[in-house]
Amino acid sequence: MPPGQHMTAEEFRHYGRAMVDWVADYLERVDDLPVLSQVAPGEIRARLPANPPEDGEPFDDVLADVDRVIVPGLTHWQSPSFFAYFPANTSGPSILGEMLSAGLGVQGMLWATSPACTEVETLMLDWMAELLGLPERFRSDGAGGGVLQDSASSATLCALLAARERSTGGSGDSPAAQLVIYATSEAHSSVEKAARIAGLGSKGVHLIPIDEHHAMRPDALDAALTEDVAAGRTPCLVVATVGTTGSNAIDPVAAIAEITARHGAWLHVDAAMSGIAALCEELRWLHDGLDRADSYCVNPHKWMLTNFDCDCFYVADREPLVRALSILPEYLRNVASDSGAVVDYRDWQVPLGRRFRALKLWFVIRHYGGSGLRRHVREHVALAQEFADWVRADRSWELAAPAPLNLVCVRHRDGDAVTQQVLERLNASGAAYLTHTRLDDRFVLRVAIGGSATGRAHVERLWHLLRDTADAVSSESDR
Amino acid sequence: MPPGQHMTAEEFRHYGRAMVDWVADYLERVDDLPVLSQVAPGEIRARLPANPPEDGEPFDDVLADVDRVIVPGLTHWQSPSFFAYFPANTSGPSILGEMLSAGLGVQGMLWATSPACTEVETLMLDWMAELLGLPERFRSDGAGGGVLQDSASSATLCALLAARERSTGGSGDSPAAQLVIYATSEAHSSVEKAARIAGLGSKGVHLIPIDEHHAMRPDALDAALTEDVAAGRTPCLVVATVGTTGSNAIDPVAAIAEITARHGAWLHVDAAMSGIAALCEELRWLHDGLDRADSYCVNPHKWMLTNFDCDCFYVADREPLVRALSILPEYLRNVASDSGAVVDYRDWQVPLGRRFRALKLWFVIRHYGGSGLRRHVREHVALAQEFADWVRADRSWELAAPAPLNLVCVRHRDGDAVTQQVLERLNASGAAYLTHTRLDDRFVLRVAIGGSATGRAHVERLWHLLRDTADAVSSESDR
Repeated sequence: MPPGQHMTAEEFRHYGRAMVDWVADYLERVDDLPVLSQVAPGEIRARLPANPPEDGEPFDDVLADVDRVIVPGLTHWQSPSFFAYFPANTSGPSILGEMLSAGLGVQGMLWATSPACTEVETLMLDWMAELLGLPERFRSDGAGGGVLQDSASSATLCALLAARERSTGGSGDSPAAQLVIYATSEAHSSVEKAARIAGLGSKGVHLIPIDEHHAMRPDALDAALTEDVAAGRTPCLVVATVGTTGSNAIDPVAAIAEITARHGAWLHVDAAMSGIAALCEELRWLHDGLDRADSYCVNPHKWMLTNFDCDCFYVADREPLVRALSILPEYLRNVASDSGAVVDYRDWQVPLGRRFRALKLWFVIRHYGGSGLRRHVREHVALAQEFADWVRADRSWELAAPAPLNLVCVRHRDGDAVTQQVLERLNASGAAYLTHTRLDDRFVLRVAIGGSATGRAHVERLWHLLRDTADAVSSESDR
Repeated sequence: MPPGQHMTAEEFRHYGRAMVDWVADYLERVDDLPVLSQVAPGEIRARLPANPPEDGEPFDDVLADVDRVIVPGLTHWQSPSFFAYFPANTSGPSILGEMLSAGLGVQGMLWATSPACTEVETLMLDWMAELLGLPERFRSDGAGGGVLQDSASSATLCALLAARERSTGGSGDSPAAQLVIYATSEAHSSVEKAARIAGLGSKGVHLIPIDEHHAMRPDALDAALTEDVAAGRTPCLVVATVGTTGSNAIDPVAAIAEITARHGAWLHVDAAMSGIAALCEELRWLHDGLDRADSYCVNPHKWMLTNFDCDCFYVADREPLVRALSILPEYLRNVASDSGAVVDYRDWQVPLGRRFRALKLWFVIRHYGGSGLRRHVREHVALAQEFADWVRADRSWELAAPAPLNLVCVRHRDGDAVTQQVLERLNASGAAYLTHTRLDDRFVLRVAIGGSATGRAHVERLWHLLRDTADAVSSESDR
């Protein structure tokens, strides 16, 4: 092809196949790569030209640079020895769904801009509600319904905007100063971020004390709400977390729901990290009380084999959400929207535009089926429980929190310095990647088990690495 | 494979190739499909099972359903006869970049979570600044810099949050009631949406009158700012639009910048729709005055052959933006971030997580080169100018606004009813797809020319269709 022209269909087929093979090879060899990228700041950029090319380059050169420049600069989230942050597991069907979405290049901002984009999304949210056993109120055939958000951060923000809309009696213009949000210190940072974005400020977040398992204390919530009402403030939103990022703590939703309803606030349940566990009936206790929540979110892009971004956000009543976010300029008006017979998802989110993200979810659910999805969740939970048992039986390590699902928090009995040194050495070795948190003012390692390719051998190897590294650290400090 | 298991590498190669071929075939045949989907509300959903499958299904069945269910429900944004809304042109290299991003499945929320994700992004934003001839202040080697946002809506919101942070002296906690945003009625709906999200409310937006070309009147802006200051309100943000969605009106940025600076407000220049034209030196007059703007955005996902989502957002000073959006929980702390030597893009956006979107931009720029990108922009502008000439020479149609770039707004001289009927018939025919707006209280058709595969033949055919359809409408109403 002459430089600067469009790729021909034949060239696209050729390089598309090369890319498919590259991805297949990558996923086969990722187990052998250092999990945490070993580069220094600036190193990747320095390998690339400072200025853009004036003339087009052969695509083979671009592909070669993927290996030369990009791969060394990656921290491999798909490595089976990635135990950091949260699982972000993907799968073949999901990657194929993203490919199709990119190839179609359609916009789903309005029903009319591609009806399939909206209707498959609504159906997938209903399928997810069924697979997770969510309350009827979140299905699309009533007053509520679901939508895909890019992330749980955006879902939390949308929950706050809907809650504010309801609190202020439909006047988006009211000053936000008197509105208060409630969550624990263990809730996701997106709660405070949403408060600041929405203009409530950090002072608009009332942090509720936690119990010995790092979960919200309902009595403390009740006291805080009562105190704020007495002081003339308006309780706007309570965020209960089902599986905190730090330690997988599970706030008692049923008790929280009763208190929240009594004070007229909006209850959002953030199950981004752990809600996927509810695929399995034996784990649905997670969602006790959810039938009284106003909104809920869960992330298939964390633990259901689906590429980021894919957060499922549900509301029991879509009216305040849409009222908070709907603005209709003339150039977006159309017969279908005016008829009221369709959903326009642009009114359910912050941005206007949207990709056809439902395709990947549709591919994943059809490929695995409910039974296949449950099997993978059960495998991860079983591995985590086995790991927790090893820790419990060990003389040098101990659990730092309950491990109800697939996250195990551990610390070395010799103290924070040893635990921290183990983390640093292990990550620097590239053999595995863990991240930390602080619980009860102690430095704690988090072992999040949920990679698509993570098996018993990887978890067992991690356990040996932890113990061996700790022995090395201890013996050095003895000298 | 047994149902419910992961795809094997071989299966992924097989279905990946099938998907690449499907996309290549689609892009070759999309010219023959009805541009606007012809389905009725509910029709797509009704073709799919109401409940999720319990067991996994063969992937061949899924692929067959893409043709059976999805394609009829699409409005084909990649059709060369798609002239609606805004261009959303894609390209082979961009689709391949999305494939790679999905296959890698890495997170770019922190530098440490994949250094290449951050460093390639910063470099691409610098490359774009050079290609577009943007002011030095937006380059990453000074106090400013760029970041990819999902959309210009999010960029506008981030601009507002940074502006508010600066206006309130760094206290994110200040009540927002006294802050005011300025834009014209022709500015994008995301300006009002951002005001509502941030808690300023619709009343926090002061609409500035427009001139006869639908651009902001600087004298009116000056008067509004002066009036608000006198009334004790704080001018926070002025949004100047370079290429409005409705009619491609270009607000006079230089004059606006002078007035905005005098009143101490933040100037955001929204060039989402048209800024890509600045690839061409002869069109850089668009950006006159941009060297005094505080922030700027432009969308490669509209007019630079790059898949949605890809908005380039720049700030002249990153400090207020990061201060507005940064919250650091313990589990995200790491040595690189603590050192201050790296950029963590989570602090530059609303969500926490982020895909490796810079890959597609890197692929596009390298494949086309600056010269190739400019050639495509020039082709679209030339086609639009030729179309505008045909309208000017016609006895029945007239231009409804200046057509400085690649958007031509037209109306039929016989009045709104005829213009509207032409739109409805044309769209229903599937032969082309246009959308409308209202200008000077008249119903106007918008012809946005920027499809990757749109050539002279498609534009010429559209012109014949418009004239023939109008003749048919007129002759019927004569009877």
